[in-house]
Amino acid sequence: MVITIINGPNLNLLGSRESSIYGDKTFEDFLKSLKKSYSNTEFIYYQSNIEGEIVDKIQSAASESDGIILNAGGYTHTSVAIRDAISAIVTPVIEVHISNVMAREEFRHISLISSACSGTITGFGINGYELAVEAFVRKII
Amino acid sequence: MVITIINGPNLNLLGSRESSIYGDKTFEDFLKSLKKSYSNTEFIYYQSNIEGEIVDKIQSAASESDGIILNAGGYTHTSVAIRDAISAIVTPVIEVHISNVMAREEFRHISLISSACSGTITGFGINGYELAVEAFVRKII
Amino acid sequence: MVITIINGPNLNLLGSRESSIYGDKTFEDFLKSLKKSYSNTEFIYYQSNIEGEIVDKIQSAASESDGIILNAGGYTHTSVAIRDAISAIVTPVIEVHISNVMAREEFRHISLISSACSGTITGFGINGYELAVEAFVRKII
Amino acid sequence: MVITIINGPNLNLLGSRESSIYGDKTFEDFLKSLKKSYSNTEFIYYQSNIEGEIVDKIQSAASESDGIILNAGGYTHTSVAIRDAISAIVTPVIEVHISNVMAREEFRHISLISSACSGTITGFGINGYELAVEAFVRKII
Amino acid sequence: MVITIINGPNLNLLGSRESSIYGDKTFEDFLKSLKKSYSNTEFIYYQSNIEGEIVDKIQSAASESDGIILNAGGYTHTSVAIRDAISAIVTPVIEVHISNVMAREEFRHISLISSACSGTITGFGINGYELAVEAFVRKII
Amino acid sequence: MVITIINGPNLNLLGSRESSIYGDKTFEDFLKSLKKSYSNTEFIYYQSNIEGEIVDKIQSAASESDGIILNAGGYTHTSVAIRDAISAIVTPVIEVHISNVMAREEFRHISLISSACSGTITGFGINGYELAVEAFVRKII
Amino acid sequence: MVITIINGPNLNLLGSRESSIYGDKTFEDFLKSLKKSYSNTEFIYYQSNIEGEIVDKIQSAASESDGIILNAGGYTHTSVAIRDAISAIVTPVIEVHISNVMAREEFRHISLISSACSGTITGFGINGYELAVEAFVRKII
Amino acid sequence: MVITIINGPNLNLLGSRESSIYGDKTFEDFLKSLKKSYSNTEFIYYQSNIEGEIVDKIQSAASESDGIILNAGGYTHTSVAIRDAISAIVTPVIEVHISNVMAREEFRHISLISSACSGTITGFGINGYELAVEAFVRKII
Amino acid sequence: MVITIINGPNLNLLGSRESSIYGDKTFEDFLKSLKKSYSNTEFIYYQSNIEGEIVDKIQSAASESDGIILNAGGYTHTSVAIRDAISAIVTPVIEVHISNVMAREEFRHISLISSACSGTITGFGINGYELAVEAFVRKII
Amino acid sequence: MVITIINGPNLNLLGSRESSIYGDKTFEDFLKSLKKSYSNTEFIYYQSNIEGEIVDKIQSAASESDGIILNAGGYTHTSVAIRDAISAIVTPVIEVHISNVMAREEFRHISLISSACSGTITGFGINGYELAVEAFVRKII
Amino acid sequence: MVITIINGPNLNLLGSRESSIYGDKTFEDFLKSLKKSYSNTEFIYYQSNIEGEIVDKIQSAASESDGIILNAGGYTHTSVAIRDAISAIVTPVIEVHISNVMAREEFRHISLISSACSGTITGFGINGYELAVEAFVRKII
Amino acid sequence: MVITIINGPNLNLLGSRESSIYGDKTFEDFLKSLKKSYSNTEFIYYQSNIEGEIVDKIQSAASESDGIILNAGGYTHTSVAIRDAISAIVTPVIEVHISNVMAREEFRHISLISSACSGTITGFGINGYELAVEAFVRKII
Repeated sequence: MVITIINGPNLNLLGSRESSIYGDKTFEDFLKSLKKSYSNTEFIYYQSNIEGEIVDKIQSAASESDGIILNAGGYTHTSVAIRDAISAIVTPVIEVHISNVMAREEFRHISLISSACSGTITGFGINGYELAVEAFVRKII
Repeated sequence: MVITIINGPNLNLLGSRESSIYGDKTFEDFLKSLKKSYSNTEFIYYQSNIEGEIVDKIQSAASESDGIILNAGGYTHTSVAIRDAISAIVTPVIEVHISNVMAREEFRHISLISSACSGTITGFGINGYELAVEAFVRKII
Repeated sequence: MVITIINGPNLNLLGSRESSIYGDKTFEDFLKSLKKSYSNTEFIYYQSNIEGEIVDKIQSAASESDGIILNAGGYTHTSVAIRDAISAIVTPVIEVHISNVMAREEFRHISLISSACSGTITGFGINGYELAVEAFVRKII
Repeated sequence: MVITIINGPNLNLLGSRESSIYGDKTFEDFLKSLKKSYSNTEFIYYQSNIEGEIVDKIQSAASESDGIILNAGGYTHTSVAIRDAISAIVTPVIEVHISNVMAREEFRHISLISSACSGTITGFGINGYELAVEAFVRKII
Repeated sequence: MVITIINGPNLNLLGSRESSIYGDKTFEDFLKSLKKSYSNTEFIYYQSNIEGEIVDKIQSAASESDGIILNAGGYTHTSVAIRDAISAIVTPVIEVHISNVMAREEFRHISLISSACSGTITGFGINGYELAVEAFVRKII
Repeated sequence: MVITIINGPNLNLLGSRESSIYGDKTFEDFLKSLKKSYSNTEFIYYQSNIEGEIVDKIQSAASESDGIILNAGGYTHTSVAIRDAISAIVTPVIEVHISNVMAREEFRHISLISSACSGTITGFGINGYELAVEAFVRKII
Repeated sequence: MVITIINGPNLNLLGSRESSIYGDKTFEDFLKSLKKSYSNTEFIYYQSNIEGEIVDKIQSAASESDGIILNAGGYTHTSVAIRDAISAIVTPVIEVHISNVMAREEFRHISLISSACSGTITGFGINGYELAVEAFVRKII
Repeated sequence: MVITIINGPNLNLLGSRESSIYGDKTFEDFLKSLKKSYSNTEFIYYQSNIEGEIVDKIQSAASESDGIILNAGGYTHTSVAIRDAISAIVTPVIEVHISNVMAREEFRHISLISSACSGTITGFGINGYELAVEAFVRKII
Repeated sequence: MVITIINGPNLNLLGSRESSIYGDKTFEDFLKSLKKSYSNTEFIYYQSNIEGEIVDKIQSAASESDGIILNAGGYTHTSVAIRDAISAIVTPVIEVHISNVMAREEFRHISLISSACSGTITGFGINGYELAVEAFVRKII
Repeated sequence: MVITIINGPNLNLLGSRESSIYGDKTFEDFLKSLKKSYSNTEFIYYQSNIEGEIVDKIQSAASESDGIILNAGGYTHTSVAIRDAISAIVTPVIEVHISNVMAREEFRHISLISSACSGTITGFGINGYELAVEAFVRKII
Repeated sequence: MVITIINGPNLNLLGSRESSIYGDKTFEDFLKSLKKSYSNTEFIYYQSNIEGEIVDKIQSAASESDGIILNAGGYTHTSVAIRDAISAIVTPVIEVHISNVMAREEFRHISLISSACSGTITGFGINGYELAVEAFVRKII
Repeated sequence: MVITIINGPNLNLLGSRESSIYGDKTFEDFLKSLKKSYSNTEFIYYQSNIEGEIVDKIQSAASESDGIILNAGGYTHTSVAIRDAISAIVTPVIEVHISNVMAREEFRHISLISSACSGTITGFGINGYELAVEAFVRKII
């Protein structure tokens, strides 16, 4: 099974960025432990701060992987383009958010992306990605 | 580990109710398989169509269990009382929705409950409860 | 033909409650004359002030009756749970309101329930129930 | 008893227009059967696509009839002029809608006319007119 | 003089629940001291987490008491049913809130109940009930 | 000087319609006294319940008269077409309302027409037309 | 007959302030000609930039005059206090605006004051005051 | 091929009306040149200021023509009736606007009609009709 | 104990102003009886129609008194300045309203001031001030 | 004549993406036939999923071409940056949408771009680009 | 060069008021150091809690000074009168806010004044006034 | 001291773009004079039309510079991603806008970025950057 994880803007700063909200583990460290736990699964990891590159990657991941885990960061709330990319492919996409977005500023309460995704996992910290992987592995999407 | 699962209104009809949205498995059958998979975990299951009884149960479950999984059904979008119950206790609560609520009617897009919960899992069908159990078992809340 | 009439909160006070709006006939008296007029029809009558009990009754009435007449009272404007109960069953439901809700306070102008019902009858006083019965008897739903 | 039925825009197309929503019976055929059923009642029928002609007819019907049944079609949601005509007369007006307008587009959810009418009957298909007639005949308005 | 105090959802947790907002005194202790201070007044106390039971109690308290003190908790912001119960009776109702609801989340800023009550007392902590009693005793409602 | 007075829907009922709001004088009687007072002014009077005929008349009055007095009645709040007609001509138009529209229902608070008119006179009863005439006669538009 | 004219903020600058909107005549000059035209009428003139002084003046003018002409300037759109002063007295108040406020910025479209006034005259330039005087003189308020 | 062109309110004034927005060519002159260019196409032209007559014409044009070009003018933003007429027929309708409505007043930004039309052409001046004809001729609707 | 009572605009008219809403007692008379009842308490009374003078007084009362009772009248709904004055001092402020503002016009439903006050007492008529005094005396703020 | 066609996000998937909405022709094939039909016109084609690259291209196309055809895809509804680029240049831009955006989700109903463009063509499928070319060729922009 | 600094409500409390937001320096001390730094500039300083006095001062400062620095405090968000005063004069006005108003309560996010000012400086603490002076001195307004 | 200036979309066109709004100086020329005036300060200049590249640059500038001056252009109003980047770093950011955005289209009135910045300078033309530099140099942020 091949899973592509796509992280959006500012998620490259995980570990150093506002650690009270996002925790103090880097995504690279997390990814390492994830690969160890799921040794039968191949992970492709991609991060970009550029909305359109995320669109690009969703399009290309569609043919390369069995599932996509997407944390679109700040684009979650504003990007019709990313939503359209998700709708345009058939590979299932799971939306993940590290923090509990509904408990933060009002402009984070609306996700343009959720309704195009298969499922959404919010508020479990960085381990939310692990739950998403688990969902793909158990084929419960 | 003790986990209380609380289901809100109309979820007693799972399996017979609008199966294109909610699937055709009854919750009782699902619960059986869940118990089999997680033999070291004790499950308390409760369903009620009455908002205030859900408030009651959240209060009492707080002292009886290590974690609560809550699908408040239609009360998700309208109940300050349930939200206040969640805020009033310290036991962590994971919110689960079977369907992708963001892809349905607009009055389902707002959850009064999410911001008081530890995390939210939406759109994975009945298996969303399993992911929530997994989150408690892995202690990733 | 079996018809279940379900009345929501405060409708137990009909006859004594704000008679300029709701009239001065009790529902019990009205029901008696209704039964007399429709002697071939069996009526089940249920009133509750509790939202979730109305959900319960809608669910159980679904298998006991050929039609449901529902006046959800104050829950009309706030209850996703009752709406979901109506959607979850196949027995047709006619929504009745005694007063002309559109001519009252703004929070009464929105019904969360109407779109899930077969039809709505508003503003005919207590006789609106009679029109609803007539609709079932004439099979024009 | 004299009842004037006034139909608004596009209702002249009943029977051919979007039959999944409006049914496949013409209003003329329906009117014939109505007259047969209520042989002691005189019916005046009027249809116009022009908002102001409906205003004219409401004004003139006020002195010619004991009750008015009005389906203002698309003008329901936009016409202060028709509403004012209803308020300006004392003859009771029953508002009828063939389809369940609350289950359709959002711009159909608001009726400017309802609060000026004696009662509203919605979602019973073309037979909603029959219920309205019944209401006048039974004098339950 | 007989005064009924009705407390809504989660107010049974007073003393243990979010003490920075609600204080650390239980309502039972408070009630004891209240009874001592007002020895000529009879107090009936009722708490429920169930919206409809609060409606029931408001209805029954109307004939049993000279005044009602109501803290509807989370139902304050969502319950047309409770509001209608207050309008349906003639016994005066004073609305009390422990915390300053206007200084909390936006969904607590709107009270559906206030306009049907005789008066509202907000932000005086648990002693707000005492002020309400004082108002009844001084007959200044 | 030639002044065209255009009255919109239901204003043909002046004198009989809701006299507490609109007074009990017919417009014909008022017009007679107006003509007597302003014997050097020629008055053209036109009333229609049809929005488009009011558009027609505004267009034709533009070349026939020195000023137009328009009471668009219920179309005031909904008609872009009438507004566009006023913008399309150069003859000045004074908007008149008999009642104080701002003290009535909320849907009467917005005028789509005002911003295209030279001036607006509201709340002076039927004599508002006289003030408008006075404005034209004194050339203070 | 005694008429008090009250002008609100920045109207002391008439003649020098944005003359394309407000004209180039000072109010003092205008007042002089007004007094000449209406020699049997006594005029009291008051201008203040202070909201509360306008409230003061409305209160005192109530006993000193037969009518008040009020141009509340920028306070028109924001002052509940001025509105309440108008409601608190019985002397009739006519609201005047020099410019066509509906054709300007959106925050000028709402008047908190209109619904408490007897009538409103808008868009006739400085001569709007003359029309208001005329209304008092002709006793057509 | 038969094409019906229907123009709404005030479009009879093209050429004289606000020429900076609508240009200085009359529709009659434009139509002449159109007929010359498309000699194999039969054009039916209809203009009315009356909303309901436009509804009538859309209905009758449905059987007389292969395509309809509709500029509903001011009714574009307010007419459910015209929208319903378009939905009620199967003949394709192309919506045309002369000016760039999105660059004008906010009340022109919403079209109730667009979603029922096959396509929309906006902002090309009077030549937008030519593009619409071209679309029908090329059968690219 | 020193208590400053600050009354806002139009409250100088108590006793003569709209007595069905505000009662028929003057504030001066009320104050006299208040002083008699609370002979150990010193009262400073201040009324102004000017928003900024109320700001001034709140600032100066902060050092002169142990508590402030504020009825900001019409400024309640519009004054950020008064709210900021309350926030800027540490002396507790109790907000009082004579009428039940939530049962009046919609623009009275929002208080900009409440969230900065210690508590709010609404709807008890002029005796609401007495309750506020009682709260200070009992030190239950 | 040189025409630059700029396609925004996900339009590179035309032909494979949701064909019921977007058709089953690739843009490359369409472009070939377009070039054949308009052999005297030079076409520059550019597609990017990146908002800022579209801004870049609009800027550079301004000096390279006589007209720009822009389908900004999902950025249509969210991009002030693209709108500003269009305003910053003098080369005319025609906005094209393949589907009838007004008949889809509500977030697609608003275009930030339209008001800066010369014209808009919506709902003609991929042939909308051809109509836009025709507009440039006929110089009817 | 003469610069008038006008401070609005509660800014007389600088140094003692909520120092975490506004700092602990008094404006008088700050002004002293400002005068020392800009010895060639004459400063006129004015503070008032009264909206209308600020209007007065803006009007008079227009002829006395080369530039105005205005911190309207709480009136920023509510005062059309102050905005109109700024529009009525030609002397440039720079708006200053001490705190970052956009990071505070929502009612502080809207400034009615900004669009009438030459420029706005926000969030630099008390030194924002210094930046404004610098702007005048460098003539970069 | 090192200051990074980051300019967003279309600001590369300064000098040629809509000069009535943005002035006729290129940023390069302005930068030259800035460097001359502040010879002890090192300036890093970066412009991009791509939202995500601006995010990248904010991240990298955080470690390279003592302060950032950001004009996010059109992304100001829509970019959560840029806002999050500013929140994620500790280097202070000053927001600059050349034009008075509050006096332009409504969609420019909201800045998602301001509340995360240290300060905002708006409406001083290109010299606003100079004020921002001055703020850093004087260490008054």
